[in-house]
Amino acid sequence: MNLQEKTVKKNYVYRGKIVNLRVDDALLPDGKPCKREMIEHPGGACVLFVREGKILLVRQFRYAYGEELLEIPAGKLNPGEDPAVTAARELEEETGYIPEKVNLLYTMYPTPGYTNEKIYIYEAEGARAGKEHPDEDEFITSSFYPADEVCRMIERGEIRDAKTIIAVQHYLLKGKGLL
Amino acid sequence: MNLQEKTVKKNYVYRGKIVNLRVDDALLPDGKPCKREMIEHPGGACVLFVREGKILLVRQFRYAYGEELLEIPAGKLNPGEDPAVTAARELEEETGYIPEKVNLLYTMYPTPGYTNEKIYIYEAEGARAGKEHPDEDEFITSSFYPADEVCRMIERGEIRDAKTIIAVQHYLLKGKGLL
Repeated sequence: MNLQEKTVKKNYVYRGKIVNLRVDDALLPDGKPCKREMIEHPGGACVLFVREGKILLVRQFRYAYGEELLEIPAGKLNPGEDPAVTAARELEEETGYIPEKVNLLYTMYPTPGYTNEKIYIYEAEGARAGKEHPDEDEFITSSFYPADEVCRMIERGEIRDAKTIIAVQHYLLKGKGLL
Repeated sequence: MNLQEKTVKKNYVYRGKIVNLRVDDALLPDGKPCKREMIEHPGGACVLFVREGKILLVRQFRYAYGEELLEIPAGKLNPGEDPAVTAARELEEETGYIPEKVNLLYTMYPTPGYTNEKIYIYEAEGARAGKEHPDEDEFITSSFYPADEVCRMIERGEIRDAKTIIAVQHYLLKGKGLL
């Protein structure tokens, strides 16, 4: 079965700092015309750092939800930036920890119905403590949480961020030799 | 530490079929003015259905990525709709299976930097086969895949959708008594 949709014309409605919005003219697989709303985003990278069984999480206010969320450190890719560099940079900016190395776990698509954002999920190896220095419009605190407590917070719905759930579930599965 | 940001004025740039875009005037925790780009979305629901160790996945073209993706069945909430109703409806529309019951596993935030979308992840119990009837602009095929194969596809990056990874990792952890 042919599932492909074709772009006829890209129409930019908004070009912003974080996202662009397009409402394209497209063709469905059966050739009928349709409109497709989509967000262009440069991509993001995040990093799981575990030290002595404790997971490093950052707390910040997320405007879109009007809530403070607990998440693994993360940020947006600069133009042309290797996501591994983004991951290491964001870990340092948000928490002060400087990793020796980061390893890619997953390339994740957060909500494929309307965004082209790719989120690169890394784990950090051998990070040493330094001084955090967030962007001037970022207000962030960070702490280590025992992995089993993080797992319970996910199950109770106290941690809801997709990249964080995936990274923590990966850590649990890996730790039990299931991956 | 006060992390709260305050809305000064909501500014709608676009109101669409799937998303609205706002670029709000807001105040940072230190009182300085800032702009906040955000997507309004009504929310989505999805459903994990496992039969005899096999997971039901749908394949569809995702315009924003220009790729066919494998995902668990999912769809957008109608205005005022209970997400459990959405989950059961989408399972039937996309695959023909009618669940006896759906249980909420997680309320997930896909990418909290710019969207307010909440994705409700359910598992289906006791679904019986019927006839699928997708929306007229949806072109979808569905199949059952052995859970260990789905796990390998996630690890190899062949399945990248966040809600699907979370639901499958949950299934694996639960199956091993780890949740």
